[in-house]
Amino acid sequence: LFGITPSTRLRPSPYYDATLAEGATSFTVYNRTLMPTGYGKPEEEYWRLIRGVSQWDVAVERQVQLAGPDAARLAQLLCPRDLSKQAIGQGKYVALCNHDGVLINDPILLKLADDRFWLSIADSNIWFWARAIAAERGLRVEVSEPDVSPMALQGPKAVDVMAHLFGSWVRELKMFWFKQTALDGIPVIVARSGWSKQGGFEVYLMDGTQGTRLWQLVKEAGKAWDIGPGNPNHCERIESGLLSYGADTDEHTNPFEVRMGKYVDLHVADDVVGIAALRRIAAVGPRRRQMGVVLGGDIAAGPRFVWYPMARNDGTPIGSLNNCVWSWRLQRNIGFALVTSDCAAGDAVSVALDRKQVSGQLVELPFI
Amino acid sequence: LFGITPSTRLRPSPYYDATLAEGATSFTVYNRTLMPTGYGKPEEEYWRLIRGVSQWDVAVERQVQLAGPDAARLAQLLCPRDLSKQAIGQGKYVALCNHDGVLINDPILLKLADDRFWLSIADSNIWFWARAIAAERGLRVEVSEPDVSPMALQGPKAVDVMAHLFGSWVRELKMFWFKQTALDGIPVIVARSGWSKQGGFEVYLMDGTQGTRLWQLVKEAGKAWDIGPGNPNHCERIESGLLSYGADTDEHTNPFEVRMGKYVDLHVADDVVGIAALRRIAAVGPRRRQMGVVLGGDIAAGPRFVWYPMARNDGTPIGSLNNCVWSWRLQRNIGFALVTSDCAAGDAVSVALDRKQVSGQLVELPFI
Repeated sequence: LFGITPSTRLRPSPYYDATLAEGATSFTVYNRTLMPTGYGKPEEEYWRLIRGVSQWDVAVERQVQLAGPDAARLAQLLCPRDLSKQAIGQGKYVALCNHDGVLINDPILLKLADDRFWLSIADSNIWFWARAIAAERGLRVEVSEPDVSPMALQGPKAVDVMAHLFGSWVRELKMFWFKQTALDGIPVIVARSGWSKQGGFEVYLMDGTQGTRLWQLVKEAGKAWDIGPGNPNHCERIESGLLSYGADTDEHTNPFEVRMGKYVDLHVADDVVGIAALRRIAAVGPRRRQMGVVLGGDIAAGPRFVWYPMARNDGTPIGSLNNCVWSWRLQRNIGFALVTSDCAAGDAVSVALDRKQVSGQLVELPFI
Repeated sequence: LFGITPSTRLRPSPYYDATLAEGATSFTVYNRTLMPTGYGKPEEEYWRLIRGVSQWDVAVERQVQLAGPDAARLAQLLCPRDLSKQAIGQGKYVALCNHDGVLINDPILLKLADDRFWLSIADSNIWFWARAIAAERGLRVEVSEPDVSPMALQGPKAVDVMAHLFGSWVRELKMFWFKQTALDGIPVIVARSGWSKQGGFEVYLMDGTQGTRLWQLVKEAGKAWDIGPGNPNHCERIESGLLSYGADTDEHTNPFEVRMGKYVDLHVADDVVGIAALRRIAAVGPRRRQMGVVLGGDIAAGPRFVWYPMARNDGTPIGSLNNCVWSWRLQRNIGFALVTSDCAAGDAVSVALDRKQVSGQLVELPFI
């Protein structure tokens, strides 16, 4: 669309040189860090993820480290999910909320030790947030950003590449569990994780100087499975119903509205940030819900900067279209909608998109 | 350099359409909002700011509104500067710090009423921060992001354009003071402010639907003074010694290190966030200081993503080069350095820049 001007406010990823060499054509900024968003062949990149194995620079998933005697206590205070049974080596998907129960991030919480945790975060500043809570409550914990930069391997063949690189133990790794290891001397954590529903792993590089070397090692190993570059895929994530914090949420969204209720445990202690508000919301029921929408008409569905107003066919406003994309598997234009709770699958809707009225029908998520 | 992919995580400014029509060629992301960073004629845009009047989309300077009975109390808790004499209609430059005395933003604090304030922020999430402090301390205050988007007019002729648009009263407005008014029915706040040392104003648009119309009204009025588009100018801000939070600072920087000590009042109340740490730092003296550096050699000085290591000529590491640029007025390559406190103007230094050793000499800021 147009260039990003370099600035020392922004940060290149350790894989920046490698992704430029792969031919990255577009980027975004996420946690003040650059992420490649395409390599010039969108449909080929999509099918590689669906049918093969795709290599992603997701170093923008920065880590907020909680370390010290009160680290576990702070983790529980920040997360309205029961962490009492979380094992070392286990990750959990959590809904960070503010005191009003508003979602402020949806990270994976990794437990590295009884006194050390990482929040592998979406795009918002949780370092400031965690430090504020820790300091105001007088906790003995250090909040920092360690030198950790995930790379993802996603797609049905990711497991074969990973087993070739790290050994067959990776095949047994359960979802969100992880293990610290090394690859040719490069310290990494291998996690069964990743922002697609095609299966895969994240390799958390723990030495930012080794980004290019790690990228090359993985690329070489993946050649037998025809690995190639990719990135968190706009089409696949919408088909699969994956949430993007900040893109699908606004400053009022609570976890119940965006299908994260199953990650909220209302019985956690009363001092957990936001739990009182979440209990109130749960008692009444959320005002809105996230649904899918299948769009009709001849529109150029694709990435956009803004939400579009959505209404019933009689003109009653019901919410917004949050994103839309041409689905290569469904051969339809699809998107997410954040709409009033009385909406149901099958409802006919209308969207004011690019100054045209586009008709659509609500469906439950995921699409596939 | 390469494209920014649209996403509803990012936000266009209300002036987005107007700046595209002006021919914006590059952008950055700041507070998750797009800002144009150039219109294709960098030297012409620079001299327009120095000699004429330049029109900037600085809507990325988002506002954090504190409103309610405890708003003044929260403002003082967040700012280690004595606000007891701040008048309604007055802005103050403040150093927001965390509990360790680390700088987390350098906003202008505008007092709109005894119970309503705006923090006009640099690039970091102060909504989360202010909400955390307010909620943890049980204050009756609402923290929000109002529909407010600054446009700047900067340069020696800005005052003439502003007087033509708003009346001659703007000539008497003192630095950082402001007044609520309207332009052709569009609600705005006019402030003597702006991120250059060439003089000027910021017009805070208070209705995001009117961005294109406000841009056009100002552009029309400015024609007699040969107004044209520009943006916060990398060259001018370095020549003038203006701080860029996040670009010139890291996760350890305190206000004393970056020439903000004069905005810290150590006598504020003990419950002000960070004041205990700031008193300790002030007593010992900061470890580092921000200086200018004049660079020799044949280098392509300009915007970059990373800091470069700086050393004395004997190899002793002293800190980093944080930015560099070709100065059209000085006809030299110049930059900022964050170096150990024992460094002094006149010291010879060496920088490892783009795999070359570049020699330089430290100077006090500003350059001009």
